Amino acid sequence: MKKLFGIILLLMPLMATAQEKMEIASPNENVMLKFWLSDKGRPMYSLDYKGKAVVNPSGLGLELAKDKHASNGTDEYDLLEGFTMTDCETTSFDETWTPVWGETSTIRNHYNEMAVTLSQEKLIRSGSGQQKPGVQERHIIIRFRVYDDGMGLRYEFPQQTWLNYFLIKEERTEFAMTGDHIAWWLPGDYDTQEQETQQTRLSEIRGRMREAVNWGNSSVAVFSETGVQTSLQMKSDDGLYINIHEAACLDYATMHLELVDRQTTAFSTQLGGGSNAYTPNPAPSACPLPKPFTFVSHLTPDATGLKGCMQTPCNTPWRTVMVSDDARDMLSSNLILNLNEPCALDDTSWIHPTKYCGVWWEMIVGKSSWNYTDEFPSIKLDNIDWQSVKPNGRHAANNEKVKRYIDFAAKNGLDEVLVEGWNVGWEDWANMWKRDVFDFVTPYPDFDIKMLNDYAHSKGVKILMHHETSSSTQNYERHIKEAFELMNHYGYDAVKTGYVGDIIPRGDHHYSQSMNNHYLYVVKEAAKHHIMVNAHEATRPTGICRTYPNLVGNESARGTEYEAFGGSRPDHTCILPFTRLQGGPMDYTPGIFVTKLNTWSDNTSWARITIAGSLALYLTMYSPLQMAADLPENYEQFDDAFQFIRDVACDWSDSRYLEAEPADYITVARKAKGTDNWFIGGKCDENGHTSVVKLDFLDKGRKYECTIYADAKDAHYEHNPQAYTITKRTVKKGDTLKITEAPGGGFAVSLIAK
Amino acid sequence: MKKLFGIILLLMPLMATAQEKMEIASPNENVMLKFWLSDKGRPMYSLDYKGKAVVNPSGLGLELAKDKHASNGTDEYDLLEGFTMTDCETTSFDETWTPVWGETSTIRNHYNEMAVTLSQEKLIRSGSGQQKPGVQERHIIIRFRVYDDGMGLRYEFPQQTWLNYFLIKEERTEFAMTGDHIAWWLPGDYDTQEQETQQTRLSEIRGRMREAVNWGNSSVAVFSETGVQTSLQMKSDDGLYINIHEAACLDYATMHLELVDRQTTAFSTQLGGGSNAYTPNPAPSACPLPKPFTFVSHLTPDATGLKGCMQTPCNTPWRTVMVSDDARDMLSSNLILNLNEPCALDDTSWIHPTKYCGVWWEMIVGKSSWNYTDEFPSIKLDNIDWQSVKPNGRHAANNEKVKRYIDFAAKNGLDEVLVEGWNVGWEDWANMWKRDVFDFVTPYPDFDIKMLNDYAHSKGVKILMHHETSSSTQNYERHIKEAFELMNHYGYDAVKTGYVGDIIPRGDHHYSQSMNNHYLYVVKEAAKHHIMVNAHEATRPTGICRTYPNLVGNESARGTEYEAFGGSRPDHTCILPFTRLQGGPMDYTPGIFVTKLNTWSDNTSWARITIAGSLALYLTMYSPLQMAADLPENYEQFDDAFQFIRDVACDWSDSRYLEAEPADYITVARKAKGTDNWFIGGKCDENGHTSVVKLDFLDKGRKYECTIYADAKDAHYEHNPQAYTITKRTVKKGDTLKITEAPGGGFAVSLIAK
Repeated sequence: MKKLFGIILLLMPLMATAQEKMEIASPNENVMLKFWLSDKGRPMYSLDYKGKAVVNPSGLGLELAKDKHASNGTDEYDLLEGFTMTDCETTSFDETWTPVWGETSTIRNHYNEMAVTLSQEKLIRSGSGQQKPGVQERHIIIRFRVYDDGMGLRYEFPQQTWLNYFLIKEERTEFAMTGDHIAWWLPGDYDTQEQETQQTRLSEIRGRMREAVNWGNSSVAVFSETGVQTSLQMKSDDGLYINIHEAACLDYATMHLELVDRQTTAFSTQLGGGSNAYTPNPAPSACPLPKPFTFVSHLTPDATGLKGCMQTPCNTPWRTVMVSDDARDMLSSNLILNLNEPCALDDTSWIHPTKYCGVWWEMIVGKSSWNYTDEFPSIKLDNIDWQSVKPNGRHAANNEKVKRYIDFAAKNGLDEVLVEGWNVGWEDWANMWKRDVFDFVTPYPDFDIKMLNDYAHSKGVKILMHHETSSSTQNYERHIKEAFELMNHYGYDAVKTGYVGDIIPRGDHHYSQSMNNHYLYVVKEAAKHHIMVNAHEATRPTGICRTYPNLVGNESARGTEYEAFGGSRPDHTCILPFTRLQGGPMDYTPGIFVTKLNTWSDNTSWARITIAGSLALYLTMYSPLQMAADLPENYEQFDDAFQFIRDVACDWSDSRYLEAEPADYITVARKAKGTDNWFIGGKCDENGHTSVVKLDFLDKGRKYECTIYADAKDAHYEHNPQAYTITKRTVKKGDTLKITEAPGGGFAVSLIAK
Repeated sequence: MKKLFGIILLLMPLMATAQEKMEIASPNENVMLKFWLSDKGRPMYSLDYKGKAVVNPSGLGLELAKDKHASNGTDEYDLLEGFTMTDCETTSFDETWTPVWGETSTIRNHYNEMAVTLSQEKLIRSGSGQQKPGVQERHIIIRFRVYDDGMGLRYEFPQQTWLNYFLIKEERTEFAMTGDHIAWWLPGDYDTQEQETQQTRLSEIRGRMREAVNWGNSSVAVFSETGVQTSLQMKSDDGLYINIHEAACLDYATMHLELVDRQTTAFSTQLGGGSNAYTPNPAPSACPLPKPFTFVSHLTPDATGLKGCMQTPCNTPWRTVMVSDDARDMLSSNLILNLNEPCALDDTSWIHPTKYCGVWWEMIVGKSSWNYTDEFPSIKLDNIDWQSVKPNGRHAANNEKVKRYIDFAAKNGLDEVLVEGWNVGWEDWANMWKRDVFDFVTPYPDFDIKMLNDYAHSKGVKILMHHETSSSTQNYERHIKEAFELMNHYGYDAVKTGYVGDIIPRGDHHYSQSMNNHYLYVVKEAAKHHIMVNAHEATRPTGICRTYPNLVGNESARGTEYEAFGGSRPDHTCILPFTRLQGGPMDYTPGIFVTKLNTWSDNTSWARITIAGSLALYLTMYSPLQMAADLPENYEQFDDAFQFIRDVACDWSDSRYLEAEPADYITVARKAKGTDNWFIGGKCDENGHTSVVKLDFLDKGRKYECTIYADAKDAHYEHNPQAYTITKRTVKKGDTLKITEAPGGGFAVSLIAK
């Protein structure tokens, strides 16, 4: 957290007239941002990279909602047009900070900043409340930070009389693309991020939308035929990699992007709670329609359709555009983390990277159950005597099984054991509009919480807590203090939370302002109890793990579980690092060795990956929290390959992205923190890939014991997924490894310094 | 809580066909209830009193909403028609129970009951989820309890496969009135109960509605031109007093009544969150329109317009009809309390009736402020250093003033001192959509919480806590445990809660299922901490203080504060006991002696009551929590009259309603619990009243020191409110007091046994 360089402040106060363009370049001048006001006084910006346009002229601003309490400083006038520029300050910033955990031991935060103060006058003819007739002046600041690999911009609202409280109808931040780029996108949705990524031209999004949505997912709440999620990765025909996302989304609705294409005649309207089909003929917006290939921000609504309740002083999250002509820069960028605030926790000594296994995959596959009994059509927690109910005989989280997992973890150097289904309430937990669904403190009768934690601790292992909330957030908040106190009492130090199903209170959405506030509330309360959080189904992360490093993981995308729900495409894990992982680590739960699930269960799904490919994910899908997701008995069949999972680190002092192309392949080398050992992972799509790895990052003059876990010659993610080779040799700096990855395969390498 | 009589069970199982009428009479046979099924299989009932029709044939049932998760037992088929009767059980019950506090020391619960089991078959053509093709059977029970002064009915939903979870679109319980009765009504509203009561014929409700609504009240959310609230008091032309209300509304939406009059063409639809005007052209309902003068239940919606989320086994609240040909029976009835469950608390020793004064009226009047500073347009609790802000000099809850109130309470035998505005956050607290508005634990710098509680306790007085939530319920629930722990720490044993302004989460309403659940959650959490609750702006009570007697008070109507907001009509307090008080005590905060507020403030409002009338309210407005609401210095001017407030009890072993007519007059005698002393109060409307009180309830042979606080001959609520006489004499059983009440006046009598 130590600042190595301070702020260099360059003050450039000025009065600008409409059309006058302010420019600011990145430190190496590759990225150039321009800002100006349109004839109507609307804030505009554009972005170039090495002289090429990345974002064409694009409008900024917000539409405000009229509140019934419109007096007393609450105001419904849009923050969209009629602005004059009253100040502009540019500064330069260069600081190197130390993350608690991460891909590198230090991170450089180096940018040039421009903060534009805009003023808007409003003539009040007849007053009410605090509003008296006359001219009211309002000020906002638009702050730009320009990095060598992109930019962030945000709106800031200083405290002021005539902009005190306000309600956001919609944010209208535009990102005008320069052409019909290839995009890797998910349907914009208020409640799920677990769809398969689509790869199309921008012009093809509308035509693909209906088939892109898995309508069987009960959480689907899509809002537009051209609505997509962030982080959105694109590639232009002139070879630029462009990514749009956001940073530091705190107590603000998650942003989606709505594409204005050639068929767009108006902005969509939001759908309101619970509906799961988009409006075919959207109502017109007050905001003028920009040119085709422009993305416009679309925030997640609350139950009333509103996008945000704000009180000055406040600001929006950062809206980010990353750009490079080298795809590897998309993966190594720290722009999102850098735009977040420094660590807010005084003591982080209790936060640690974690490798874990868990009583989980066998329930996902359907072989055993989270619930303890099948005796009742439904249950109420207050009315059940758990000691006397009839067990269903399929309950996974029982003493015997959990002890076996603890033994497995202890034997293999795994830190923790996740146990799902340990607590009462799983009999009827999802999508029932059941508020009092779990109490988070009462174990099933076959889960002896004291004995099992004592047993785990005696073997140097911890149990990883599970709090499925069933999206009944009010219920979770009512119980959270007792739940965390229970964790402290028994020595848990991490919790996996879950938000399956519809949000209670009804009408709210997973990615709304209030839900984002809830997720943060949980992280903060957990920090008070020295508990790490791994939140599933919560909103996609935006780098807030910098500020709250006890947020060690999120799901927020299609994880390994979908391999048991019909499968994911082999290129899925070659896309996620470009998209979902931009905001923070994902608890992807890799490591499936027995990919044909019907060999040990009734599930006919199969994982589209080879064993070597599975090992690669521990490198290519960066996370300080890594699961060995398969069953102990499945790993025991392939113990030589499992050796890599035993060996691999999950915290790093250095990372080098060696090869990368979205949806095709990713190769990365990482140096294990506190050691001189390196690990390399390479993952490819269904087409296979030959990776040439030059070991020029190793220490000069040092020898390394190199173990290569590779796909066998005839390996294939469908036909021959368990064919791998393990070869050992001694290598040194400058040597080259040439490794062939099978279709849907990959490789993993450990380099142990001698 | 001791049962004096047990249940007498009379089993009468039978199979009834449509049209066959089941009858059950009250114990004294005055009240007769009939139940049958219509040709279409709709449940129907009617009610007679002494052979006169009270409720004409009226339909029962519920419309269910279709949920997107319609499989798995969730079902959208209405529970309205197509029923057959498969069982009917009648029982008789007679028990006398002992309330923790109340109007009498024991309460007799004596009724005859009929429980009708109804079955409905549904043909499933194509299945989904758990639903397979075939016939599904569902069962509900309608339970009637018939008392000598009315009846209660409720719907019960046993746990069953095909009625497991369900969503209520609307409850369709009808109350078909027999004529164009006079009614005392409030506009039906999802968020406020603080309007002035209207007195009209049923046929005049529609024409009066617009002027009946105080549109300046920011909480107004009316839903229909003929929607009214319960408890609804009526009087028929043949002299029957009829009251419709509900009992035991727990985790269910509060019921309103929508009148079908001669102009009604369809049911109204609910308006959704935040709107405050009703829909002029309502959409048609699936439910057939009943005859004119029929009230139909209309539940308070959630943010999505839905009325309830249910899981079997469960039941609705009781829908009650009270009836008598003597208005006094409306006041002495215990029907609502009796329909609630017995006390749920093991230990009630910490619950006590309370007389209190408070730092309150001077803020209501506008002379001083809740907030500490005027320095900022708005505040955020985390960002303020309260020690360094500039005080506004008007903050009431300061050490000096609170000590003065404590001294006053100690000197006059008052138990507690309410202090509002003691905690930070009052600078911008209402209707700002501010979630984090209060923390309920941080005092303003001029309120030394330790010193003041110590000081109070040293004088035998307690401070009464105040938790204004600003209707930000999520915020209150997040802080409630620390807030109650703080109260325990400093020795508070009671809290006044407040729910001013719009509900957060947005779109919810004060009287919805989720808010009713919240109020109950607070009462239960308080009970765990041995804290009594007095909830303001919460939903109107329905007798749940029997089950949770730490709910010692509610506001839930237009209280004394409105005397500072323009005033209330003189008959207001002669209506409330017939309406609002049916469900439980009201913290009306009586006792204004200096009624012309501009004599000591800039407020030009005035209270429409005489001093003798104010004293009467301590008897006629029954509550175990009674405030002496005026300022100490105002009471000191009239210390001889204040003697009555010092003397009067607030818990009773017996109560006798001597005279009553809605909106005209109420006279009641009560015996102070644990003593042989009686107190009598009489209150009248703007027309004055002469009360003849026969003292036949006194102990035979005993002499009583009788002090009569009466209006002076020329007293008048407007022209001469402070003219009173105090006379003393000795009386005995059989004596008669004749006392003249001035317009807007009343009288109070203490009878101290010698």
